[in-house]
This record gives sequence, structure tokens and C-alpha cells, in this order.
Amino acid sequence: MPQNIAIMGASGYTGAELVRIIATHPSFNIVALTGDRKAGQPMSSVYPHLRHLALPDLISIEELDYSGLDLVFCALPHATSQAVIPSIPESVKVVDLSADFRLRDPEAYAKWYGKPHAALELQKTAVYGLTEFYRDEIRGARFVAGTGCNAATGQYALVPLVKAGVIDLDDIIMDLKAATSGAGRSAKEHLLLSELNENVKAYSAGGTHRHLGEFDQELAKAAGREVRVQLTPHLLPAARGIVMTCYLKGDPARVHETLSAAYLNEAFIHVLPFGELPQMKDVRASNFCHIGVVGDRVAGRATVIATLDNLTKGSSGQAVQNANLMLGLEETAGLMLAPVYP
Amino acid sequence: MPQNIAIMGASGYTGAELVRIIATHPSFNIVALTGDRKAGQPMSSVYPHLRHLALPDLISIEELDYSGLDLVFCALPHATSQAVIPSIPESVKVVDLSADFRLRDPEAYAKWYGKPHAALELQKTAVYGLTEFYRDEIRGARFVAGTGCNAATGQYALVPLVKAGVIDLDDIIMDLKAATSGAGRSAKEHLLLSELNENVKAYSAGGTHRHLGEFDQELAKAAGREVRVQLTPHLLPAARGIVMTCYLKGDPARVHETLSAAYLNEAFIHVLPFGELPQMKDVRASNFCHIGVVGDRVAGRATVIATLDNLTKGSSGQAVQNANLMLGLEETAGLMLAPVYP
Amino acid sequence: MPQNIAIMGASGYTGAELVRIIATHPSFNIVALTGDRKAGQPMSSVYPHLRHLALPDLISIEELDYSGLDLVFCALPHATSQAVIPSIPESVKVVDLSADFRLRDPEAYAKWYGKPHAALELQKTAVYGLTEFYRDEIRGARFVAGTGCNAATGQYALVPLVKAGVIDLDDIIMDLKAATSGAGRSAKEHLLLSELNENVKAYSAGGTHRHLGEFDQELAKAAGREVRVQLTPHLLPAARGIVMTCYLKGDPARVHETLSAAYLNEAFIHVLPFGELPQMKDVRASNFCHIGVVGDRVAGRATVIATLDNLTKGSSGQAVQNANLMLGLEETAGLMLAPVYP
Amino acid sequence: MPQNIAIMGASGYTGAELVRIIATHPSFNIVALTGDRKAGQPMSSVYPHLRHLALPDLISIEELDYSGLDLVFCALPHATSQAVIPSIPESVKVVDLSADFRLRDPEAYAKWYGKPHAALELQKTAVYGLTEFYRDEIRGARFVAGTGCNAATGQYALVPLVKAGVIDLDDIIMDLKAATSGAGRSAKEHLLLSELNENVKAYSAGGTHRHLGEFDQELAKAAGREVRVQLTPHLLPAARGIVMTCYLKGDPARVHETLSAAYLNEAFIHVLPFGELPQMKDVRASNFCHIGVVGDRVAGRATVIATLDNLTKGSSGQAVQNANLMLGLEETAGLMLAPVYP
Repeated sequence: MPQNIAIMGASGYTGAELVRIIATHPSFNIVALTGDRKAGQPMSSVYPHLRHLALPDLISIEELDYSGLDLVFCALPHATSQAVIPSIPESVKVVDLSADFRLRDPEAYAKWYGKPHAALELQKTAVYGLTEFYRDEIRGARFVAGTGCNAATGQYALVPLVKAGVIDLDDIIMDLKAATSGAGRSAKEHLLLSELNENVKAYSAGGTHRHLGEFDQELAKAAGREVRVQLTPHLLPAARGIVMTCYLKGDPARVHETLSAAYLNEAFIHVLPFGELPQMKDVRASNFCHIGVVGDRVAGRATVIATLDNLTKGSSGQAVQNANLMLGLEETAGLMLAPVYP
Repeated sequence: MPQNIAIMGASGYTGAELVRIIATHPSFNIVALTGDRKAGQPMSSVYPHLRHLALPDLISIEELDYSGLDLVFCALPHATSQAVIPSIPESVKVVDLSADFRLRDPEAYAKWYGKPHAALELQKTAVYGLTEFYRDEIRGARFVAGTGCNAATGQYALVPLVKAGVIDLDDIIMDLKAATSGAGRSAKEHLLLSELNENVKAYSAGGTHRHLGEFDQELAKAAGREVRVQLTPHLLPAARGIVMTCYLKGDPARVHETLSAAYLNEAFIHVLPFGELPQMKDVRASNFCHIGVVGDRVAGRATVIATLDNLTKGSSGQAVQNANLMLGLEETAGLMLAPVYP
Repeated sequence: MPQNIAIMGASGYTGAELVRIIATHPSFNIVALTGDRKAGQPMSSVYPHLRHLALPDLISIEELDYSGLDLVFCALPHATSQAVIPSIPESVKVVDLSADFRLRDPEAYAKWYGKPHAALELQKTAVYGLTEFYRDEIRGARFVAGTGCNAATGQYALVPLVKAGVIDLDDIIMDLKAATSGAGRSAKEHLLLSELNENVKAYSAGGTHRHLGEFDQELAKAAGREVRVQLTPHLLPAARGIVMTCYLKGDPARVHETLSAAYLNEAFIHVLPFGELPQMKDVRASNFCHIGVVGDRVAGRATVIATLDNLTKGSSGQAVQNANLMLGLEETAGLMLAPVYP
Repeated sequence: MPQNIAIMGASGYTGAELVRIIATHPSFNIVALTGDRKAGQPMSSVYPHLRHLALPDLISIEELDYSGLDLVFCALPHATSQAVIPSIPESVKVVDLSADFRLRDPEAYAKWYGKPHAALELQKTAVYGLTEFYRDEIRGARFVAGTGCNAATGQYALVPLVKAGVIDLDDIIMDLKAATSGAGRSAKEHLLLSELNENVKAYSAGGTHRHLGEFDQELAKAAGREVRVQLTPHLLPAARGIVMTCYLKGDPARVHETLSAAYLNEAFIHVLPFGELPQMKDVRASNFCHIGVVGDRVAGRATVIATLDNLTKGSSGQAVQNANLMLGLEETAGLMLAPVYP
């Protein structure tokens, strides 16, 4: 039975990626797309690559009719979701792709996002959307808060290791390489091709990147104690993809075994044979995450490298995976699209 | 009913692209993959992005068992197909992706490829694989010869115009921008990222590009007379995609009407509203072709710009489209994958 | 003897390129840099790559002290130059890099730029800055108007041919491939790396690109009659460089001879041996322009391909070349920096 | 007085970069270029971007006449230098750009390069070419061994800190991002633009990268004890540049002070204000190295990020800097070329 779907914020990259995935999803039927600044326009004028699809025109959020809707994907900018989601009828399920409901602790939210949270009651109902670790809660949830794309990548590398106690929790270093689409479609000087081609640029270093709030929350939950990772993000001359290189203290063989066991039955998370290193393009435009583990000539050190596509597994693919569960569908429905290489 | 498929030459880019498409095709079942230099290896060691699929290991062509096969995709290098395809049993349908069987005239073949054709009898049975123009022949064919990727792009822009007699046949200029994957995966100095990033390079100019043989053949057929286009190819700093800018003499409104009418019922060929210009990334990793038409301040001049993905609509997607027809399936089966943007 | 130089609009790409070139110029001394929105900041905070230079901080235009200045480079946005340059003292020489003073005919200006010109008297004194064709006028000039970067590229390919009468003036087709820095540093959605990587996009087609005003003016002057070229620009996934592919009717050998003779003694314009094709990266970050000529299997057709770096020979390098002449220096002073490859 | 220079191995990227730099060097005169496979060809046919220079044709090494030569740059492939340099007359100074003479300990050489060293006597005379740390030895040297480009980047970040004892020597982690030209011009599949565009790929992880031999040697010398760093290299979709992100244990303010003091009088090494992060393109095509230092929310942790251009400061610019010293010239002669941005 087709599920009636609306996408709020369809004019952004994660909105367009949702449409791309749903275009070949067996059960989802897009009945509404909102895009405030583009309201009244056909989706094909905002994203001509979707020209072949019969899609509803963009409307404003106010025009959205919730009757008959099964689920709304909310791909609005950060801070906007808080204002909008509380007014969605309870009968409609919601997957939020913004940062607004990821942090359970209102003080943590205020610290990382610089202002108090405006929908504290709703926040209490949100399930953190990292499917592989919250599958049961998501299955029964009405409201799921999608994770940060970088936070997802790092957690796939770390959470099983933290849970298993096989690495030193006080010495976790993460070197992040991130493509530009994670920063969205809004025009900013430092995201221009002129600026970034042939360039790599560190940013938000020194413990200031907002996704650290998610790491703090989820790693503490996995460890049963506070964990403070180090993270240095670098912007890449590429449009899609994330590589997270994690420098860990622990026995590399045990690290590999732990990760391999944790993801043995997962459809989307693939741990490579010990010593093999993943590359970013191998998961491009797909819902897969590849993880490699290697030891070092320095004993007791393991390097774990995880890669995924920020717009797919890091955001819109993850959202569809969660929606599948929430709607009682096969978790992988519509998501087995193979990566695009080269 | 699943169709049993083999791919010869699966270690090249068009072979990998066939696997990518077939991964979500509803009726195709890959039973064998050949890759002579990589025989014995799992496909995932040659293309780790296909790691999630249960694929047969690569074998040599000699090891290929034709019994039970419905269709073979032959993605071997040019000149190799001629030697291999004649020995495939008649009961097995064949789609060739090489250049070997595109030219019906053996003299034309010898001229453009520099040696006599080695399988003249088989050549006579080959149907030229530009689906939209050869649909009926392909439906009943046992053997289809896929087109050149650049030749396909240009023909989508030109053939309806030539047939309709709305452009000057003696003054057709085509400026081609082509991504690197069209040149394959073999290591060549001029295809290195070091050489091509921040670069554009014209090549095979002045009437020497081999795809001109296809233009000569197909445009003469459409026109009922000899047609000699000009073509200047340029290599781009991009991995996938083709843009063909065609400078034509004719009334731009009639040009637009003619193309719009020709492709009105085509699933994959989209003619944009008059004056709109297509961009290469809008068809990325898809089987779609976008065509734009614009006039000029110089009266009686029309510019037609066509774009497609060389590996999909220009090669492997086209091959699947033809195979669908040959096997009595829906023409679009497995091919409605939406383009990947950004 | 050092020449005292000021750069207005130093916070844009052409301003920064002027500083880069002047950094190793034997006679220029930068005494002031203006950048209205960045006034008060050190240049190194706007362009950290210039950190090693002892440069004056950015000031507002109002703060600029003209006393002691020999020459001002005006790299302000289009339309701003008209307002500013009239107030520069006559004793100071001026090279403008904007589009404001390129068109001698006020009606042409109004047509291409959409409003009446605001400094008509000053316009009459402007010398068009294509050095190789206006060398004598530039030597004695007080005010030189730099050319459009695309216009420069096309004129290097065409002007000697038009003057010599060796091509059909009614059938000139120019296919332009242009990198993003030509569009400046202001943040625009279509210039984001996310949008442009793996992309090519035609724009301003059909006779609407503003540089056509320059082609109309200069080719008419060369021909002694009206000439209307066709031009289709395409945006590239690259930061620097222009390739102009010109489709001409004329004898290719004569075309090559004419160009070779025209540029025989030019330091910066290199005509390749007949049949050799230039590539964009071969002139990167330099003041050189490479031109290739090739014939076609269609008799009487010649293709001329010219390439230069839009920020150097197309803009700031050209400006320094003109300033050298205006100040009685060696024309090539500071400009023999070799191209950066790969 | 002009110095007569020969370049062996001029057909590789470091050879071409030497020619680019020397093109505007005030005192160097190129009298011979060798390129065995290209012997007999003009340099402009191998590197058309050097077309404007009057250069000698490529010859074979056997044809090289050493009489009158002041200095030879040897840019031959690794292992070839050992065979060639011993036969250069003692009167000719030599700067080697290969890996052959970087390691003073023959056992270390054998370990990292997989075979015994073939010129042990010559090795004893080689001065390690990291100018800022070996300036006095280089000034009087006849033979200087240029460093690895990645090794140089890391050492600029680390050596002063190791010497000053301000970081934990047993916990140094280096995450390397390297552009493709560091791998040279030879055609390899993994260096194709098709493979690398939109990609990032870790390689030689786990303590296997050969430049670790240089780190081991030089950091031990600085520390007076063995130091074993961790290093994970990643290949970037870019042609030029290196970013080394170093995760250190030490007080970030002291780290910044130590580096600032160490490079206070250096022309080419720039330490940014505390907390500022360098970007790769800010040193493009220049001899500069930018270093940034930032602290972390985890106390006692410092991140140091160093960037330089692998072909310039990492190889050919470094070689010219050393040659300047060896020949009694100004150390910065010919090397103040400003970075190319954007």
C-alpha cells in the first residue's frame, strides 16, 4: 500500500536527495513539497535533474494539507524545524533532518547552538535516528531526529568499540574530510568552486564543531561515562562524501573483530577485511558505509577509517531507512541503489 | 521471470556500470562476469563499490558457460569483440558495447579503425543500438551494436532535424565536451588528474574523431544523402558526462518544435522549453538525455545543446534499454534511476 | 625608478591578481589598496596567500591620497568605475579593469549594460586595452580601459583574420569554455563547488553575452563593416582559464599563416605549429595566450582555438602590460612568470 | 654572474617545476636538460607550457657535457640517482631530488626501499636538504639530498617542538592529505581523474609510508632519542599541495610560541596567529609554508596544521633554495613568486 509522503524544505540538497531516492522507492508517494522561497514553482525549475518525475509544485508550509499524510520528512534549516514540527498533527509521523532535535539535553543544545531550545516537550519524544543503534525505538516511533552526517560517520566507526571497551576512551582523535554539499546550497564565499578547487581547508577545529554535541551524547551513552573526542574537520574539493579517519588506542585485531561482529548482519555497513582501506567514491550516492581498520608499527594503535555519502547515508538515505521502519516496511526498501563509480 | 545475464569485460567502466544498473533491475540475474586480466578475482576487489552485491567471481572468456544464458553484454575493448562474439551460440542474445559492429559499411570500418573488419558476416546481422530510432528492429534482434557515447549525444540533437529537413545539411558544427570515463580505465598520462584538473584540452579535431563514422552513416540514412558534420572534441576535468553544442542553420522555433515532437513520448529524452539550457550534471548517473534549443541574434541560426551521461545513456544504460526490448521486457525496466545531483 | 601604484577594489580576484603579479614586478611599488567593505583590514586577512608581502592595509576609496601616485589600477565592480574614475586627478594615470569604458558608443553601452553611461566625457578619452592591437595609443595614454577576458581571448583568435580578409565575416561561431573566477568572488549559488563539480553549463547563449558588445566594436573596426559573431559560453568545473573554439570559413593554411605572421614578434601570443591544439592549463597563472589552428575534412573550414588565463592575460596581467607601456617601462616587465603546470 | 645549470630528469614534474622557477631566476642559466625516454625532443613538446622559453632540447644522460657546469639538479626517479650521481665530476655541485640519499643509515635505506644502497660512499657526503634546519651545512656542501615532500611538511610542523621538548614524543599522530602530482607523471590507474575526482583515498597507512624513514631519522636527531610517529596519508582530488594535520600532546600556547620563535626570521615559513587555520591553496605554486596552531577543548592537546606545495617548497623550490646557498647567492633568489590564488 503506498504511503503518502510530504517533504518540507524540498528546495535544499537533502530535500532533493529525498526526492531522488523516493523516485524509485516501491511504496512512497510524494503528495506535497514545500519550499518557502520557491513556493509556486515546479520542482523541475529548482532542480532540473528531477524533470522526468511527476511531482507536485512547491508550496509554502502554510499551504500544506496534512490530511491523508502518513509521514513528513522535515528538511528545513536548523532552528526552523523547532517552530514548524510542533504544529504537525500527531497522526502524521515525522522524520526531521535538521539539527534541532538531536540533542536530548536542553543545556547541551543551548551550548552548541547558541540559544535555548524552543520545543522542549517535543524534544522529549524524539528518537535519535542512527538506525543501526536505535532500530527498536525507531520502529515504534512517531518522531525521529536524523543525525548529523559527520556525527553518523564517526559513530559508525566508534560506537561498537566504545560499547565493547576495546579502546582508550580518553584518547580518541578524529580527522574529518568533508565534501561541500554538507554545507547546503546557500551561497557562501568559502564554498565557491573558485575558492575550493585545488584546496583543502580546516575549519571548526579545536573542539568547536557542533556535531561534537552528538558525539558527547552518544558516546557517553555507549560508554556509561563522559567521553570527549578530538575532531578536526577539513573541507574538500568535492561535492559529496565524508571520510573520517579515527586514531585510536587499542589492539587493532580486536578493533577489527569488534566492528566486524557489530555489523555482521547490517545491510548497509560494510567492514572491509583487516588492512584494507576504504575510499570515498565507493559509497557515492548510496546508503552504504564502508569501514576499514589497520594497525600501526606503533603497537597498540589502531586506525579506523569510515566513509559514507553525507547526503545519502548521512542524511536523506538514513531518513528513508528510518521512515521504512516507522511505517512497517522493509528497512532496505528503495535503498539498495548501488554506488555510482567512477 | 528472471533473465540470465553474462557480462564480458566486466572489469572496465562500462562493465561496472552494467552491474550498477542491473543491481536494481527487476528481471536480470547476473550469472557470469568475465575479465581476462582479473580472472579469478572477486568483482569487489576490482570495484569495491559493488561490495554489497552477491556477484560471481571474474572468469576468463574461455571459462564462460553459455548454457542457460539469455543474453550477453559484451563490454570488451574495441577489436576484441570481433574475435569473441562470433563464437557465442545463436540461442544467446548479444548486446555489444564496443565500436566493432556500429558501422555497416566494411570500408567505413576499415577507414575509421585502421584495419579490415574480421567478422563481416556477423556485422550484417547487427542492429544499430540507438533505441529511439531503431526500436522496432531492436525488439526482434538477436544482436545489437551499441553506439558511441558521443555519437549518441549528437544524434539525439540532430537526427530528427535532419529527417525533417529543417536545418542546412552542409553546415553542421558540433562542439563536444567529454568527461574522462569515456576513455576507459586504462592508465594513460593525459588522463591523470594531475594533467586534467583545471584543464580543458581539444583532441581529435579536424574531422578525425572515430565517432564521425557513425554520424556519417546515420545522418546519411536520415537525410537520404551524404552529410559531413564538423566535430571538435574537448576533454573535461570531470569523470562522467557529455555536452554536445550544435551550431545549426535553420529556424530556431521550428528546430525546437521538431525536436519536441520527435521526443514527445520518449521516457528518456527530454526537450527543455525553448531558450532553456541543459547542464551536464542534471543527467548524471542516469539514462536521461536533456536537450535545449536557443535562437541567436543572427537570424536563422539555432543552437542545440544535448547532454547525457556517457556511461549510462551513452553506453551501459542504452545497452540495458536495448536488452529490455530484445527480451520482451518493459523498455524502461531498471532504468528510471533518478540523476544524482549535486 | 619605482612607480607608485594604487589598486582600487583590491578585495576582488583581479585586485588580488594584480598584487600577485606586482609582488615580483621590478618597478612597481604598491602604496595603497582600497576595498570598501573590507576597509581597515590587512590584505592578508582577505587574501592569506599574500601574507608574505608588506602591503598597506585596505582603506576606503575616500581615504585614498592621490598625491605621489603614478598610476591607479581600478578593479572595482562594473558600474562603480564610472562613478569613481572621473574624480581621479589628471596627473595620475589610470588602468580600468571593469567593463565601464570598453565600449566607445554610448548607445552600445546602454544596450549591453542596461542603463545610460554616467561618464561620457571620460569615455571619449579611454583607449581600448588590448595591448597587441592598441600598443601605440596605449603608450601615450592617460586612461586605458581593460578588455573583457572572454573578449580578449576571442579577439586574439579573430582580429588578424578579420583584418586580412581571410575568413567569411558572416559565419563566425565561437564556443567558449570559461572557468569560474571570471565571475568574481561574490557568493552565487550557481558558482558553488557543489553545483559545478562534475558539471558543465551553457549560459548567456543566443547572442546575449555582454562581451559581444566588444566583439561588435572591435571586429567592425578591423573589418570596416559590421560583423556579428555567434557565441555560446559554457561554465567549467575549474577556477582559472578560458578556451575559445572558433569555427571559421576560410583556408586553414592561410588562417594559420595569417595568425603566425601577426604574432611573430609578440612576447605573449604564441601560435602553435599547424594542427597542434592548445590546452587551458598550459597558460595557467601566466600572461601567455596559446593559439592553435587545424583544418577539417570539410574543405574550406578552419578551427582556431585560443586559450589564456582570465585573471592574468585576460585581466590583471593585461592591465600590468598596459601600465608598463603607459609608464615608459619594458612592456614585459614583471610578466614573464612561467605558467604553472601541472 | 650567471650560474650554469643542468637538470637531469627534466621530463618529470619536479624537472618541469625547476624550469618554471628558473625561468625568472636572476642568476641561473639552463644549459642542459636530460630526459632519457624523450631525448632528442624539444622541452616544449613534453611541456608546452614552457614554450616561451629558449631551452636546450632534451638529451640522454650519456650526452651530458659537465664542463662549465656549476650545478646539476638531479630529478631522476628513485633508485636511478644512485647509479648516476657517482659519475658526476667533483667540481660540479649536485642537488638530488630523489629519495636515494635522504637516509644516512644504510640499513634504514634498505628497510624502507627494499634493497641495499648502491652508492654508500657518496651517501656519506650528502647533506639533508631541509634548508631551515641544515642551512650552515648546505652552504658549504657539494652534494645535497632533497627531502620527501610529505616529510618536509611534517618536519616544519614538528622539529622545533621536538627540539624544545614541548610535546609528548610518544604520541605524535599525523594525518596527511596529499595531491596527485607527488606521485609523478607516470600513468597509473589510481591516479586517473576518473578514479580520483570526487574521491579521497587513504594509502600506505599503518606505518608503511617511506617518508617515515625521514621522520625517524630527523626527529631522533632533534630529540636525542628514538621517535616513532603515526602517519596516515590520503590522496586528494587535487593536483598540487599537501596538508599535514598533526595531533599533539602539549600546551597549545607553548606549541605556538615555539613555532613562532623558530620561524621568526624565516622568509618562507609563516606561522599564523594562534587559532588561525591555513588552507592548501594559499601556498599554491610558491615556496611558502603556512603553519597554524589551535588548542582543543581537551586540555593539553594541540593541533598543528602545515601546508606547502609539494612541487615547490616540497621539492623543486626547496632544491633551488639549497642551490642558492651552495652557490653563494641570496637564499631567496628567484623564489619570492607569490602563491597563485584562486
